[in-house]
Amino acid sequence: MSTHTHTYAQKHKIHFSECDPAGIVFYPQYFILFNDLIEAWIDSLLPEGYHGVIGARRIGMPTVHLEADFKAISRMGEEVSLSLDVERIGEKSLTLAWACTGADGVVRMAARQTIVTTSLDTHKAIEIPDDLRAAIGRTVAAGHWAAGSVP
Amino acid sequence: MSTHTHTYAQKHKIHFSECDPAGIVFYPQYFILFNDLIEAWIDSLLPEGYHGVIGARRIGMPTVHLEADFKAISRMGEEVSLSLDVERIGEKSLTLAWACTGADGVVRMAARQTIVTTSLDTHKAIEIPDDLRAAIGRTVAAGHWAAGSVP
Amino acid sequence: MSTHTHTYAQKHKIHFSECDPAGIVFYPQYFILFNDLIEAWIDSLLPEGYHGVIGARRIGMPTVHLEADFKAISRMGEEVSLSLDVERIGEKSLTLAWACTGADGVVRMAARQTIVTTSLDTHKAIEIPDDLRAAIGRTVAAGHWAAGSVP
Amino acid sequence: MSTHTHTYAQKHKIHFSECDPAGIVFYPQYFILFNDLIEAWIDSLLPEGYHGVIGARRIGMPTVHLEADFKAISRMGEEVSLSLDVERIGEKSLTLAWACTGADGVVRMAARQTIVTTSLDTHKAIEIPDDLRAAIGRTVAAGHWAAGSVP
Repeated sequence: MSTHTHTYAQKHKIHFSECDPAGIVFYPQYFILFNDLIEAWIDSLLPEGYHGVIGARRIGMPTVHLEADFKAISRMGEEVSLSLDVERIGEKSLTLAWACTGADGVVRMAARQTIVTTSLDTHKAIEIPDDLRAAIGRTVAAGHWAAGSVP
Repeated sequence: MSTHTHTYAQKHKIHFSECDPAGIVFYPQYFILFNDLIEAWIDSLLPEGYHGVIGARRIGMPTVHLEADFKAISRMGEEVSLSLDVERIGEKSLTLAWACTGADGVVRMAARQTIVTTSLDTHKAIEIPDDLRAAIGRTVAAGHWAAGSVP
Repeated sequence: MSTHTHTYAQKHKIHFSECDPAGIVFYPQYFILFNDLIEAWIDSLLPEGYHGVIGARRIGMPTVHLEADFKAISRMGEEVSLSLDVERIGEKSLTLAWACTGADGVVRMAARQTIVTTSLDTHKAIEIPDDLRAAIGRTVAAGHWAAGSVP
Repeated sequence: MSTHTHTYAQKHKIHFSECDPAGIVFYPQYFILFNDLIEAWIDSLLPEGYHGVIGARRIGMPTVHLEADFKAISRMGEEVSLSLDVERIGEKSLTLAWACTGADGVVRMAARQTIVTTSLDTHKAIEIPDDLRAAIGRTVAAGHWAAGSVP
């Protein structure tokens, strides 16, 4: 199965509030945009959503490793696509691959992020909850997402 | 004409990234959300959009006065409506009324903001551009917005 | 007693990260700067600090009303003074007056903020804790702050 | 010469505004903190400062590559040290190594960042300005910084 069969993606128009005095995206804003994308992705996987995982279940999803390449600038007002793929699911962690791509098909930035699931009481790593693992597995197996999918 | 006939509004789901250690919206984030809303509103009024006004025309739209009441909390994951109405259009400034309302109909925060149009070269106030004034006038007269309208 | 005898203030150099594509402070950033100032002020008043009040005691200090005037721009790299005065202490709320002033003495923005003390479990207003009230009272009475004071 | 002889560092107290609903630093905030640190470092190297480089000279310093490891959490109210070292100076780029270390000596996050110098008119890479290169060279040769140094 190709990686792109299970991409979760959203369109995004670059806001003024995300740009710096050079008129281009201030790079830390990409990490906020992708955090919001991951939240929408989890919302699409679990009925209780990301906030239910964090809030009611008290499971955190902190980032432990991040590598990013910034290849081209994104300007205020541009329409970009923000996408994520699951590269790996481990016992207590998962690795995601992200890309921000312009309407011209040019990749603006790409990153690889490793997230661990933790107890928000102890901040120690815990196993990925079964329902989240199963939901991720189903979408990967099906080769598509129910919502926000890119063919 | 009632105020609500010319409301511009968008739905928004409160992100993790917008919340503070109390699990509720960190209040400065509301101002970013409404700045993004104003941007979308200008995008709906002028073909070149907000970024064209700021970028190519070098016209700024800074805030000169702001009053806000925070009436109820908004929690991570909640669906809210962000709306704006034009209260007044002057020669070089306009006054907007905003509200963030929960799915339960409860107003979470409401604000009144006065914006001036400025030259980004001198940072002095200038007259509101004719096309922007006309576009605002048309939507107010029609009692509706072409995009993002709330009946 | 004059208002200025009990001002709490800090110098701040305007960061690139706080500026927008116009090269000036993006106005919501002022609210973050003043939130950080209030935190430093509470840290100067109580041994456990702001984070102890929020964290261990689970007392929130949300904003319920805010009025701000933006009078002059602040540019990237400028040294400004951020100051706060206590205007009023009520049973469950207090009103602060802030100002951001340039090295040239020109007030860039000034605001009045009403904060309530709340239970972070119920998000209902509660009485201002006695030790915080006493600490505020002492500094106002003394006409100066132990730390960060402006003569 | 050891790496640590030319470290530029500042103390920082973790703000409420930098923390997420888990009460710990929201990871994109680290990138803002280090951007502010780099700005202070450039300010210590060149009389016109970072804003002079960006503003008057129209030279950008965008990030092209970033790798970060998040090893331990930083909580609201904690005192941390933010440090940077120059790992490499190329013709048009430089590589910095950062660390955020707790008062307990535990590294909270460490990163390696490659920055390029660009024309803000063309967004193309340009040579590192001679005075910036010379200033960086002097501090590395001297094994210390004039300001903000860590012995």
